[in-house]
Amino acid sequence: MQFVATEHQHRRFNPLNGQWVLVCPHRTQRPWSGQQEKPQKNEVPEFDPSNPLCPGVTRPNGIETPAYESTYVFDNDFPALVEAVPIPPNGDDPLFQIAPARGNCRVMCFHPKSNLTLPTMSAAEIEVVIDEWIRQFNELSATYAWVQIFENKGASMGCSNPHPHCQIWSCSFLPTEPQLKQERLRAYYTTNERPLLADYVERELQRQERIVIENPDWLVVVPFWATWPFETMLISRNNNKRINDLTLEQRQNLARTIKELTTKYDNLFQCSFPYSMGWHGAPTGPEHAHASSAHWTLHAVYYPPLLRSATVRKFMVGFELLAMAQRDLTPEQAAQRLREVDGTRHYLEK
Amino acid sequence: MQFVATEHQHRRFNPLNGQWVLVCPHRTQRPWSGQQEKPQKNEVPEFDPSNPLCPGVTRPNGIETPAYESTYVFDNDFPALVEAVPIPPNGDDPLFQIAPARGNCRVMCFHPKSNLTLPTMSAAEIEVVIDEWIRQFNELSATYAWVQIFENKGASMGCSNPHPHCQIWSCSFLPTEPQLKQERLRAYYTTNERPLLADYVERELQRQERIVIENPDWLVVVPFWATWPFETMLISRNNNKRINDLTLEQRQNLARTIKELTTKYDNLFQCSFPYSMGWHGAPTGPEHAHASSAHWTLHAVYYPPLLRSATVRKFMVGFELLAMAQRDLTPEQAAQRLREVDGTRHYLEK
Ligand SMILES: O=P(O)(O)O[C@H]1O[C@H](CO)[C@@H](O)[C@H](O)[C@H]1O
Ligand SMILES: O=P(O)(O)O[C@H]1O[C@H](CO)[C@@H](O)[C@H](O)[C@H]1O
Repeated sequence: MQFVATEHQHRRFNPLNGQWVLVCPHRTQRPWSGQQEKPQKNEVPEFDPSNPLCPGVTRPNGIETPAYESTYVFDNDFPALVEAVPIPPNGDDPLFQIAPARGNCRVMCFHPKSNLTLPTMSAAEIEVVIDEWIRQFNELSATYAWVQIFENKGASMGCSNPHPHCQIWSCSFLPTEPQLKQERLRAYYTTNERPLLADYVERELQRQERIVIENPDWLVVVPFWATWPFETMLISRNNNKRINDLTLEQRQNLARTIKELTTKYDNLFQCSFPYSMGWHGAPTGPEHAHASSAHWTLHAVYYPPLLRSATVRKFMVGFELLAMAQRDLTPEQAAQRLREVDGTRHYLEK
Repeated sequence: MQFVATEHQHRRFNPLNGQWVLVCPHRTQRPWSGQQEKPQKNEVPEFDPSNPLCPGVTRPNGIETPAYESTYVFDNDFPALVEAVPIPPNGDDPLFQIAPARGNCRVMCFHPKSNLTLPTMSAAEIEVVIDEWIRQFNELSATYAWVQIFENKGASMGCSNPHPHCQIWSCSFLPTEPQLKQERLRAYYTTNERPLLADYVERELQRQERIVIENPDWLVVVPFWATWPFETMLISRNNNKRINDLTLEQRQNLARTIKELTTKYDNLFQCSFPYSMGWHGAPTGPEHAHASSAHWTLHAVYYPPLLRSATVRKFMVGFELLAMAQRDLTPEQAAQRLREVDGTRHYLEK
C-alpha cells in the first residue's frame, strides 16, 4: 500500500517546540453528538451602556472609560500579573521549586463600536490597531523580557466580552512557549546560519501546499505541524525580529493581510470565527537588549477551535492532554479550504 | 512585604515535564460574564435505545452491542489509530519531519446502565472496571509501546456520550507527554537513586498541605505544580510501575479511592464533575520490555476544567496557549476544598 497523507495516520514534528503531532485524517467521518458551540451572535449592539469596554461607561471599579474614538488601552482591573510583589522564598528541593513573577496586564480596545470585529473593520482601522500594538510594545519592551500581545475571540475561546479587544500581558521572565522557541530557533541558527522561519517560508513557497495568503511582506500558512484544525501562522518575509521594527508599508500590508485572513475564517463556516491569536518575536527587556536576535523571525499564530462547522469544535482533552496533540484533518486539507474560501468580501456583506 | 502564596503571583516548576506554571491567586475575584457551561443533567435514562453504548443496541456500523452485564470493550468505530498503515516517506529536511504511527483505539463501557458514573457506582463495580483495565493492559502492552487508558467525562471535556465509559488508545511509539516524563523521571533517578514520585509522596506526607486522600496504598494530592484548578494526582505508594502489577488489596483500595475522589469532585459544585483522567506508568511493548522501569511510579492524573462553580470553567486559551500555563487559585487552596468536602456520600443520595 502506498502512503497517502489524507488517508493514513502519521506523526509530524514541530521544530518550534520539539513535539510531535498525531495526524488522523480519516477521523472526520465520525458522527458528532457531543457539545454544540453557540455561534457568536451578530446581535451585539453598537453601544451597550453596561459594557465596561464601551466609551463613556463606568467600570465596576468606578473608573470611567473615556469617549475614545479609535483604540483605547487601560490596565486590566483584575490582572494576573502585577508589578510589586514580594519575592517567594525558594528552598533547595528540586520537587518544590518556586520563582518570582512580575508583570502587568493591559486591555486594548480595537474600536469604539462593540459590533465590529477585525474582519468587519476597514484595513485603515486595523492599521490603527497595529500602530497601537507597536506603541504598547515600545513602552513595555523597555522593561519586560516578554510582552505577549494576544486576542481571545469568541465565547468558546474564553472571551468574556464581545467588544473587539485584545490583551497585553508583560512578564519579567521568559514564559514556557517563547523559551522553547528561543532555544529551538537558536540551535537551528547555530547549525544552519539562517533563521529557521526564513528557511521555512522559502520552502513553503516552493512546495505551495499549505499556503493560505501570500504577498511580498507576509506569508500565511497552515504549518506542516499545525495542531488546531485551521491553525495558521502569519510570518514576516522581511527578516523582522519584533513587531516594532515594521516599516509603514509592512504595517499597511499587515493590516490588509489580517483583514483577509480573518474574513476567510469568518466565511469558512459563516460565523464570527473564534480563535486565540498572538504575536511572537525576539525577547526584550534589559536582559535581552544586547543578545543577538538573528535567529528570530516575527510571526503571529492563530489557534481556532472549530473543526467541522460553526457549532462543532475540536476538544483538546483526554488523549491530547495525557499523551500528545492529535488532529482530524491534514494541514494541507485545511490550507486548501482556507485558500479557496473568499477573503475579499465578508459573508455578512453579501 | 512578606511573600504570601495565596496573595502574590509566582511561578512553580513541574518536574515531570520541565515547565513552569504561573499561579495568580488574586484573580479569582474578577467577575465572569463569559461562557457558562451546561452542568451535566441527571436526566440520562438508564437505557436509551438510540445510544450505541447501551446493551442490545445496534451501532451505526450494523454491529450489535451485546447484552453485557458488567464491562464491555469494543474497537472504536472511528479510530484515530489503526494497525495497518503504510510507512510515510521521510525526507531529510528537519522542517518537514514525518514519522509512522500504528495503534488501535478501544472503547470500554464501565457498566450497562447509562445513568451511572464512577462516583455513583459501588466500589465493587469500580473494582470490575479496574480488573478490565488490567486485562486490556495485559493484552495491549505485549505489542504497544504505550497504552493510554483515559476517560473524558462531561460535555465540556469533549465527551460525546453520557454512558459511563473510557477509551484505550494504544501506540506503536511513545507519545509526547510520557516521553517527557520518561526522560525527567530517568534523570532524577540517575541523580538520586530513588523514583521521583516516591520522594514526592514522602515529602507531601511530611508537609500535609496538598493532600486530598491518604491511605496505605494510595495518595491523592493536588500537585505543587497543578495547572487545572482542581487537578489531582493519584499516586501508588507501593512502588508499582504499571497498572497490571497491583495486588488484589491494592486494587480494592484503588476502587475505594476512586469512588471517594470522584464523590468529592461531584460534591464540590453539586454536579457531575467533568474531567479528563488517565493512567501513566512505565512504557511497554517489546521495545521497553527489557529496559529498567525503576524510575517509574504508577499514577493517574485528573484534569477537571471547572473553576468556580458548576457553570464557570477555566479556559486554557490566549496567554496559556501562547505563553504558559496559568492558574487562578493556589494548589493548597484547591486541596483544602477537596479535603474538606464530603467524600463518603454523594450529593444525589442526600
Ligand atoms: O473519541 P471521542 O470521545 O468521540 O472524542 C473525544 O476524545 C478524543 C480523545 O481525547 C479527542 O480527540 C476528541 O477531540 C474528543 O472529542
Ligand atoms: O482575561 P479574560 O479575557 O477575562 O480571561 C481569558 O483570558 C485569559 C488569558 O488567556 C485566561 O487566563 C482566562 O482563562 C480566559 O477566560
